[in-house]
Amino acid sequence: MEFDNIRLDKTANEPLYRQLAENIKAAVRRGDLREGERLPPIRAWKESLGVSSVTATQAYEVLKEEGFTSGQVGRGTFVRLPPAAEAVQTVATLTALRETIGNYSPERPETGPVLPDYLRASRSVQVQRYLETALARYRANPSRPDDFLVMTSGSPAPELFAVRRWKSAMAHAGESFETGAGAFQLQYGSPLGDHETRVWLAEYLRRFGLHPGADEILLTTGSQQALDLLSRTFMGPGDTVLMESPTYISALEIFEGRGISWLPLPLDEAGLDLDSLERTLQRHKPRLLYTVPTSQSPTGLTLSLERRSRLLELARRYDFFILEDDTCNEFYYPAARSLPALASFDPQGRVIYLKSFSKLIFPALRFGAIVASGPILDKLAEAKGIFDRSTSLPLTRSVLKFASHPAFERELALAREVYAERQATLLAALAERLGPEGCLWTRCEGGFSLLLTLPPGIRADEFHAQAAGEGVAVLPAAVLYPVPSHAAENTLRVSFGDNTPASLREGVERLGRALRTLGQRSPRSASGPGFVAAV
Amino acid sequence: MEFDNIRLDKTANEPLYRQLAENIKAAVRRGDLREGERLPPIRAWKESLGVSSVTATQAYEVLKEEGFTSGQVGRGTFVRLPPAAEAVQTVATLTALRETIGNYSPERPETGPVLPDYLRASRSVQVQRYLETALARYRANPSRPDDFLVMTSGSPAPELFAVRRWKSAMAHAGESFETGAGAFQLQYGSPLGDHETRVWLAEYLRRFGLHPGADEILLTTGSQQALDLLSRTFMGPGDTVLMESPTYISALEIFEGRGISWLPLPLDEAGLDLDSLERTLQRHKPRLLYTVPTSQSPTGLTLSLERRSRLLELARRYDFFILEDDTCNEFYYPAARSLPALASFDPQGRVIYLKSFSKLIFPALRFGAIVASGPILDKLAEAKGIFDRSTSLPLTRSVLKFASHPAFERELALAREVYAERQATLLAALAERLGPEGCLWTRCEGGFSLLLTLPPGIRADEFHAQAAGEGVAVLPAAVLYPVPSHAAENTLRVSFGDNTPASLREGVERLGRALRTLGQRSPRSASGPGFVAAV
Repeated sequence: MEFDNIRLDKTANEPLYRQLAENIKAAVRRGDLREGERLPPIRAWKESLGVSSVTATQAYEVLKEEGFTSGQVGRGTFVRLPPAAEAVQTVATLTALRETIGNYSPERPETGPVLPDYLRASRSVQVQRYLETALARYRANPSRPDDFLVMTSGSPAPELFAVRRWKSAMAHAGESFETGAGAFQLQYGSPLGDHETRVWLAEYLRRFGLHPGADEILLTTGSQQALDLLSRTFMGPGDTVLMESPTYISALEIFEGRGISWLPLPLDEAGLDLDSLERTLQRHKPRLLYTVPTSQSPTGLTLSLERRSRLLELARRYDFFILEDDTCNEFYYPAARSLPALASFDPQGRVIYLKSFSKLIFPALRFGAIVASGPILDKLAEAKGIFDRSTSLPLTRSVLKFASHPAFERELALAREVYAERQATLLAALAERLGPEGCLWTRCEGGFSLLLTLPPGIRADEFHAQAAGEGVAVLPAAVLYPVPSHAAENTLRVSFGDNTPASLREGVERLGRALRTLGQRSPRSASGPGFVAAV
Repeated sequence: MEFDNIRLDKTANEPLYRQLAENIKAAVRRGDLREGERLPPIRAWKESLGVSSVTATQAYEVLKEEGFTSGQVGRGTFVRLPPAAEAVQTVATLTALRETIGNYSPERPETGPVLPDYLRASRSVQVQRYLETALARYRANPSRPDDFLVMTSGSPAPELFAVRRWKSAMAHAGESFETGAGAFQLQYGSPLGDHETRVWLAEYLRRFGLHPGADEILLTTGSQQALDLLSRTFMGPGDTVLMESPTYISALEIFEGRGISWLPLPLDEAGLDLDSLERTLQRHKPRLLYTVPTSQSPTGLTLSLERRSRLLELARRYDFFILEDDTCNEFYYPAARSLPALASFDPQGRVIYLKSFSKLIFPALRFGAIVASGPILDKLAEAKGIFDRSTSLPLTRSVLKFASHPAFERELALAREVYAERQATLLAALAERLGPEGCLWTRCEGGFSLLLTLPPGIRADEFHAQAAGEGVAVLPAAVLYPVPSHAAENTLRVSFGDNTPASLREGVERLGRALRTLGQRSPRSASGPGFVAAV
């Protein structure tokens, strides 16, 4: 706690204790005070600022009432996360950063007996560490800007969430339990999930060329759970799995828990490099390929139509299955077009198709689905039944009401426009500011992020630290590669989904400053849209 | 019957007979077809809509199986009312039986390429097999009763589900996203789940003697997921886990997937036998004990107050952790009282506490929680974050609105009365009909089922088959024992939560008939309330 930043005005109408409380809240929002940090004892206010102990005590009471602190008599008063409303614009606190990436690790004393654990989550721990380092760097810079821009999250834009329509969908979903089978619907149900919703989803997926029966769909709590069910059902120690390099961090982390071996595959501007894949197939006998063919994460690249049919041919010839993660197929931008899913080329049931609604509706929803052929789906349904029975019916029916409404298509079209503007803004800013510095980047055609390659000689982690000092966070991409890779050393993920065009321009400006600082000691090389493919 | 409203699509995936059956069901629900009304004869479908007699016959069979018609050969097929209340009593179709136990195994040809899988679910497969056998036996009996009574499910009573109030809770939950942080709340959130709901839950749990902080609670999609997170975080190959014998099937099945070793523990009328536990502790070094101290599943027994404090003392002395599954603590019956949870005796953080809302609200909800001390909870939150991020916020807020309303307590009190009547009815019927035949049973003090011990010489599986022929299903309990046990050979689980008193009396009547048939060749022995404890 720095007393320097406290501004009290004894002539103001607002009582002093209120002013003090507001000052402390502002410090929390700025991130100057962290969750779990102890506030100064009451007497310290007197010593440093001449604030009476009555005033300081009252201020602490206000903070407690408003949820900004917690404390125990005799132990002190500790900072807590401010109520959500206030945290919105200031993603600057460590806690908010953690929540952005879905992680949690409060700073509290580790006391009491401890159980050894079997958890291995080095990748998300690493992401968290990067964010912590970034924030520390930002704070350490005395001439830092007022705001800290986070371009790592991969989250969608909250201003696009159709909150009012969601409210009405929930109300209608509730009504559906009074009709039909009434309360009987609310007993334990099929692990596949609500039949009515599966019928609708089967119809929805026709836009991607799929024609599943309702009984070929399993509803999940999101694509994360879908990946988990798949890994536990069909992956085990010693199996080899083909994986794009780099790829989606959660898939890597979940699959790694199963003790498999990776066969990493390079990408080029048309997506997965199939010649390289075929060479790998001639030497190895993989069981599965995990791929995000459309708007790949983190590159934003899309597998061309020609490669899609050839990939299926390879799967048949070399007898492997494909896990197609089709999360962002709705979000393609002007230069691109919607392409049929891999599963649409698959009459044999070799493609297991994953769909998530986290980006389409909102992330806190937790809703997704797996489409697969009979025997494969049966096994996944068995797993779902064992591990969490079925996906919540009230949630499922809310999704049905929301997404089967005609307004949903209009909202998707609007979202495409908004994201397209952000993508175009980011690409233009990169061309203007980072191209001349010798950077390359993927010409992302969809999704929410792209991959940035720094000029040779500049390491991603030193660039990350330098950029953080300038007030912008980007993610060193090494954690997104299945196996350690030379290419990973100077690549970063840059996301644009949840930043406005103005923030994106400002963010790239700051990246440029960081690069110029570092680049003074490095030679420049080829630059512009492009991609250094490597495994 | 008006043929005009029948819509059949020969190009659809769904077979025609299914479509026809669904059309007729819809007509019944709409009220176009009244109870007692005769359906058209088979040939009428051909004349009016060109539907073959095979298709129409199949459709009528479906309707009969699903309880929508009754009929006698030569007299015609007559509509029955399918409202929830009635459907509950007639869970007679195989599909419904499967759904009751959360399993799924459609009858479709297994074609196409197949992936080997790593799933081991022999226990629930065995339960399903028992139910299929039961139904086949029932159908094979020419003098079978009209209805088939299922006393295996462990499900709560659907007539108690507060459907209208749930509808209103969902509508209010939707409104909560327009206030406070608005759309920002709907981004990725903490793996612990909604803070507001955790604050409420912390308060709710005080009734069981717990005083957790909101940050000591992790929200899950139910107790099943809680067990899964626990097993993946804190259990691994070679670990030994203490387990009541018999116990909750899902815990057995989920934990077994982790390759642990069991140390089975006997129960007596006051719950877990602690002397026996202590002898086990002198010889082994277990990491964990899983227990359902209140309204134990399947016995309905409750651990006495004295034993609770001694159990915690043992945990400290022998350094193991306790997983306390407290699902049914709200449902204790007149002879019993609400007891403080084990976790309330635990200042050290040795008890990990599990709560589910499936029985309190309804099973299709999928909502539960884990309460644990700091470092343990951090690890569980990490696991939750990796495997499915967080529990759905719209679902969570609906639960909050529903369960924090004053009516919730009144509904719980009413439910206690209803279940108490069912429990008393079952106990009285057992005393009257099965006591004289030499049976023993647990004097269940809570929950939804008890354990029945047959006289020596009568095997549970042959009794199960005989009872099914009489029109009642009960579950041979061998699948509920951690390791094969001599005692398991003649015990069965009998559930009462989702059967009316009249059905329970009739069910026990039928069990009595089955027993008398089998018992003619066996000697009788001690009988009445009691329990053959064995490991």
